[in-house]
Amino acid sequence: MTGRLSGAMMAALLASSAIPAVAETPDRERIAGTVEAQHDANVAALRDWIALPTIAAEKLNTPAGAEYMQQLALDAGFQQAKIIPTDGVPAVFATLDSGADTTLGLYFMYDVKQFDPAEWNSPPLEGRLVEREGEGLAMVGRGAVNQKGPETAFLAAIKAIQASGRKLPVNLVLVAEGEEEVASTHFDQVVAVPEVRDALAKSIGVFIPSAAQGEDGSATITLGAKGAVEFQLVVGGETSDKYPQTDIHSSNHARIENPAWRLVKALDTLVADDGHTPAIDGWFENVRPLTERQKMLIAQNAELNPEAQEKERLGVGRWIDDEPYVTSLERFYSQPTVNIQGLNAGYTGQGGKTVLPGRAEAKLEFRLVPAMTKDEAVSKLKAHLAKRGFDDVQVTVSGGYGPNETEEDSTLIRAQKALFEKDGVPYSIIPRNAGSWPGVIFNGPQLNLPASQFGLSRGGGAHAPNEWFLIESSDPAVNGFDEAVMAYVDYLYAVAEEAGRSD
Amino acid sequence: MTGRLSGAMMAALLASSAIPAVAETPDRERIAGTVEAQHDANVAALRDWIALPTIAAEKLNTPAGAEYMQQLALDAGFQQAKIIPTDGVPAVFATLDSGADTTLGLYFMYDVKQFDPAEWNSPPLEGRLVEREGEGLAMVGRGAVNQKGPETAFLAAIKAIQASGRKLPVNLVLVAEGEEEVASTHFDQVVAVPEVRDALAKSIGVFIPSAAQGEDGSATITLGAKGAVEFQLVVGGETSDKYPQTDIHSSNHARIENPAWRLVKALDTLVADDGHTPAIDGWFENVRPLTERQKMLIAQNAELNPEAQEKERLGVGRWIDDEPYVTSLERFYSQPTVNIQGLNAGYTGQGGKTVLPGRAEAKLEFRLVPAMTKDEAVSKLKAHLAKRGFDDVQVTVSGGYGPNETEEDSTLIRAQKALFEKDGVPYSIIPRNAGSWPGVIFNGPQLNLPASQFGLSRGGGAHAPNEWFLIESSDPAVNGFDEAVMAYVDYLYAVAEEAGRSD
Repeated sequence: MTGRLSGAMMAALLASSAIPAVAETPDRERIAGTVEAQHDANVAALRDWIALPTIAAEKLNTPAGAEYMQQLALDAGFQQAKIIPTDGVPAVFATLDSGADTTLGLYFMYDVKQFDPAEWNSPPLEGRLVEREGEGLAMVGRGAVNQKGPETAFLAAIKAIQASGRKLPVNLVLVAEGEEEVASTHFDQVVAVPEVRDALAKSIGVFIPSAAQGEDGSATITLGAKGAVEFQLVVGGETSDKYPQTDIHSSNHARIENPAWRLVKALDTLVADDGHTPAIDGWFENVRPLTERQKMLIAQNAELNPEAQEKERLGVGRWIDDEPYVTSLERFYSQPTVNIQGLNAGYTGQGGKTVLPGRAEAKLEFRLVPAMTKDEAVSKLKAHLAKRGFDDVQVTVSGGYGPNETEEDSTLIRAQKALFEKDGVPYSIIPRNAGSWPGVIFNGPQLNLPASQFGLSRGGGAHAPNEWFLIESSDPAVNGFDEAVMAYVDYLYAVAEEAGRSD
Repeated sequence: MTGRLSGAMMAALLASSAIPAVAETPDRERIAGTVEAQHDANVAALRDWIALPTIAAEKLNTPAGAEYMQQLALDAGFQQAKIIPTDGVPAVFATLDSGADTTLGLYFMYDVKQFDPAEWNSPPLEGRLVEREGEGLAMVGRGAVNQKGPETAFLAAIKAIQASGRKLPVNLVLVAEGEEEVASTHFDQVVAVPEVRDALAKSIGVFIPSAAQGEDGSATITLGAKGAVEFQLVVGGETSDKYPQTDIHSSNHARIENPAWRLVKALDTLVADDGHTPAIDGWFENVRPLTERQKMLIAQNAELNPEAQEKERLGVGRWIDDEPYVTSLERFYSQPTVNIQGLNAGYTGQGGKTVLPGRAEAKLEFRLVPAMTKDEAVSKLKAHLAKRGFDDVQVTVSGGYGPNETEEDSTLIRAQKALFEKDGVPYSIIPRNAGSWPGVIFNGPQLNLPASQFGLSRGGGAHAPNEWFLIESSDPAVNGFDEAVMAYVDYLYAVAEEAGRSD
């Protein structure tokens, strides 16, 4: 899933009250020296990892990527790391017991998005260092920011702490999957393995290393994310003998049904006449309204991201129903959607062609908000279509997961705030990412754990050509690789301290 | 437009009553000898014409094709032939006055459908002679059957009559267009030229040479054709600032309208919930029901074309509403349609992609029956959408024309019947082609002329790779090139005789 981090929402400091300061990281100078000494080796490690792309959709380097991930964990000091088979791509489970009171969960992805080298300015698997104007030196490669760069920085952090002769302030439980880019299709199987589940259950929460720093050095705390479920509706010769097997001459529509019309009729029932309000039976039953605190955070963020700039970035002149900006943002963060990603039927070239299509497909996606679940949404869709007699409309769910939500006063989030306060990093809080990540695996009923993203580093181009991760920053307010590593070091100590405060 | 001739409807003799026999063509032996002597030159002429493809959609050989057509007419004995400019591709107008009592109109097309040489077994512009199993020797090339083969055979017929020292039994008025394959976009301009209109107005009707012989040698008489209008509906950033200019991240659908939903909502209003009955306001106002004679012809044709065979050919198991076969055929010939040719929006590759499309397009087409007109249909569509507030749905009409209809007792049709009776050619009559050709240009209110297709020859693959036209037939019941030429010779005499009978 894309859109993990909205670049738009990270800008400046939000007023926040009564965050206790955290202590200075012990032996910080020494650890920083170790990080500096290991800089070249760390950068080389990122480059080597980029050279081995795992792409689940293409079955590329799937066992090889898992074995590589296993070795990375062992090299970083995890005492055990094992490959967990699934019905799809295998995952990796690793633990590092430092004898600490607090256990922290970690979620990694070792797969990357597809890429077309022809669209890149440098070879996507070479991890070249390229100067970015006004930013510094960045490594360019597929997976640089999504997610190998931040993950490599995290591994470098725990290596540096240990190499400095210290034990980690927290125990670690790592789960790494190789199917994040195909909607984490089998990740629930990994977490259901008793050994994995029991290890995670001891943690105070799970986080994924990320690159959340804006151009000005500001950070964003996100308190959850919408869920996303992708599915396709198909009608045609393959679903009913009412329709032809292939495109045939269009004159036959006078006596033969057209699957494109049937698809239109089915789609039409899924949203209201306004063209956006979901109309699936019972859709809003479990949708929780925004809290006053969430509304306040949204209003504050609106001030940080001028409306005109947002409209220009998105290429639109108006929001849904011509709503004012803050209303549109409340909608953005709070409303579950039924979106058409694509339509494909019959002739799609220039002008027209006299065919009756043999097949019509709509690609759709739900975005779900608390307390909706994936199973609920899919069941409601199927019941909705069945009730209206659309037996010839085939529903294929290709992946997805429910929403996740983490309390603002959880240890994971308190540690982020405390760290930003101490270091004077400007930050904003968004109540929910309108994009999606599979935090629900940790967040959902099985484990009920906080799940968040953290990383004071910078990069861009996820899912696009010339993906990059900043290595040497030319702006003191923005972290390069070594500073990003130190932010993870500080975060681990902050988590340990905040966890102690909860006791 | 495609589907000019339905291969399914030509099978065997329909009982027909009291057709007076026509006389033997005078000097037939001598003319046939001339045709035989000119065989190689005629086949070479067809091959040369195939080598110069005019493709209006690609602006390929548009003036060159018109000049070539002009020269073909002059070479065939037309006393004058001139190029008629239009706002699109030029047409050709030619006349041959033989001092006869009767004038016959001719409609030619000199353009051909696009082609991809990679899909062909022999180069599409070389006109190679290839053996077709069980049929004989055929010329393969783009335009071979649609329509250069039949047209070359017709020109050969009038050359042979003249070369045999005879005057043609009818005067000829030829109009040839170069935009048939793009729905005759400017052909009405040609017929509106006073000189052309006045010349055509003197004719007893207009016919287009065609290859209408079935595998068993049977012929089909068609008494008209549906009209066809192609149009596209587009919604997106280009039609309203409610929609993004390009595909953007799908999470934004929570606050930004999706043009694909809007398109679905507009489309949904165009047909009833059954997915096929047109629901455009006033759509059926001018639709004439089938006559008893038309129903009888349909029932007879149903017997000639077994239902199981038709279903297999079309790849379907059922007709609309599970109707019985004859009912479905009545629908086929009598009902105007609103067809979706294609849908195209957003992501159309494998699986899903989290985008909100910047553009959504539906390609549609009307098929019209008497007494509907193109202008009526387009006006009603626009009024229908406007009434429902779809101002952001852009309608582009890319071409089309209304239906045509020719009386069974017109000279053109009587001459066909009389000829088939005399020669013992089995034939069937279909009341209307469910496909389309621009006969309405002649048939409509301006000229009110009968308009039909005629040609006792065989070919196939129109609009497809390996298009062919039979040159040497291995079956005595099926015409090769020379026999096709003689059928045109006989037809001209039959037309003259039948016209005399009308006086």
